[in-house]
Amino acid sequence: MKKNTFISGCLAVMICCLVMTNTALGASYAEDRAEIENLMSVYIYALDLKDPDAYVGTFTEDGVLNHAGGIERGRAEIREFIENNAANARRAMENRDRSKPRPIPSRHLIDNLELHINGDTATGRAYWSSMSVDENRQPHISEYGFYEDEYRRVNGKWLFSKRLIVNEFRPGREYGVVSAE
Amino acid sequence: MKKNTFISGCLAVMICCLVMTNTALGASYAEDRAEIENLMSVYIYALDLKDPDAYVGTFTEDGVLNHAGGIERGRAEIREFIENNAANARRAMENRDRSKPRPIPSRHLIDNLELHINGDTATGRAYWSSMSVDENRQPHISEYGFYEDEYRRVNGKWLFSKRLIVNEFRPGREYGVVSAE
Amino acid sequence: MKKNTFISGCLAVMICCLVMTNTALGASYAEDRAEIENLMSVYIYALDLKDPDAYVGTFTEDGVLNHAGGIERGRAEIREFIENNAANARRAMENRDRSKPRPIPSRHLIDNLELHINGDTATGRAYWSSMSVDENRQPHISEYGFYEDEYRRVNGKWLFSKRLIVNEFRPGREYGVVSAE
Repeated sequence: MKKNTFISGCLAVMICCLVMTNTALGASYAEDRAEIENLMSVYIYALDLKDPDAYVGTFTEDGVLNHAGGIERGRAEIREFIENNAANARRAMENRDRSKPRPIPSRHLIDNLELHINGDTATGRAYWSSMSVDENRQPHISEYGFYEDEYRRVNGKWLFSKRLIVNEFRPGREYGVVSAE
Repeated sequence: MKKNTFISGCLAVMICCLVMTNTALGASYAEDRAEIENLMSVYIYALDLKDPDAYVGTFTEDGVLNHAGGIERGRAEIREFIENNAANARRAMENRDRSKPRPIPSRHLIDNLELHINGDTATGRAYWSSMSVDENRQPHISEYGFYEDEYRRVNGKWLFSKRLIVNEFRPGREYGVVSAE
Repeated sequence: MKKNTFISGCLAVMICCLVMTNTALGASYAEDRAEIENLMSVYIYALDLKDPDAYVGTFTEDGVLNHAGGIERGRAEIREFIENNAANARRAMENRDRSKPRPIPSRHLIDNLELHINGDTATGRAYWSSMSVDENRQPHISEYGFYEDEYRRVNGKWLFSKRLIVNEFRPGREYGVVSAE
């Protein structure tokens, strides 16, 4: 047998392996979904624990955030929005009535991710709900709605390229009323 | 070296690769879980957003749905059940008191999927809870329970072959009382 | 061509395949995340359905559970803690006022897992919330907080090596106040 034939054989096998592994790894729905689920959790901790850097880091450079208060286009606008939010929360905390017990923070829950991957972009939606406490420190659901998302993989990392916040409790922002632009 | 030996060697390597890739891909717990999680989300959007076609499409042809109102066997019965549900909801929406603000829809949350895969069949359970609003538009948890599910992979797609809805608030349907038939 | 060259070639290809498959399988974020998500669900069913064996089985032999009532070190202490809990619940159930309807059990929801894998160890956090019913059988959120977890893979199985329960409603156990030891 000629050496060339041998090398060709080896190459054929290796290419075949690469294709199969790529199917298992690169184009794996589970891998993409796992990373996007983690992204959604990172977003919530950034929001609830007031970490503007982490929050901005979940969006692409040209990411769009469409929320009840307006539309932020790009990381700079998103940063301004979330830093204002965090500053307001900090101020409220500092100016609170200190004769009362420490206030209990609100938290957001994410459920029911429906996700469609298309190479390096993806679309998805998920329910969000928020929990707060009333003046008697009793917890309750305060609002709910869902996210309509577009994601993009940038340098191997999934990020939000567009996030629309549907809120069933804000007139004009309900499902079937608000729409992504 | 004989050509036969060479071809045998290559075949051995390729079979070995196929087996390994299959382990990584076909028999991957993460892939199966990711697809079943998505199925569960598709089911909830079909239910909450009143889409009977999407709802029926989450079951196998011979799928069984065991709910508080009865047992539906096969897609035709499941379709009749969910179309009635959607029609009732539509009617209630049309006949509502229009002097009041638009009603806020109920939503279902799914949590804590415990899933066991066995080739092309699987069993699982997950908590569900529903959120509704009262007459003052205050949201609250309205009911909760869990699903006991059987799944089957049909043409490469995971579907419900049996779904039992446990509901802790309906006498006879509570955990430990109701059972799959 | 020499036989040795041929065998070397085959070995090279096989090692290459092994490495690739390992990347796809052994070191897969999705596989690890899927298994840890399932672990978290198993934990909740063990807790809510009062199954001390299943509960203890989610921890490593030297696992640490840091909860509002104290710190349990190792499976023996964890077992004592959870068996006491289950016995108290059983007693309350037996001694309940039987002129009233069967009480509706509390359930725990887990959301927003943020997970970082590092070989055979991992760290993560997730929100928990609990649902209960009041004296009128109306469900509501009773408490919430989050878990700060460390995980270890033992004999191929992910387990909790450390679980810290943050509870926003218990003084001294709130986020930013309590810390893992």
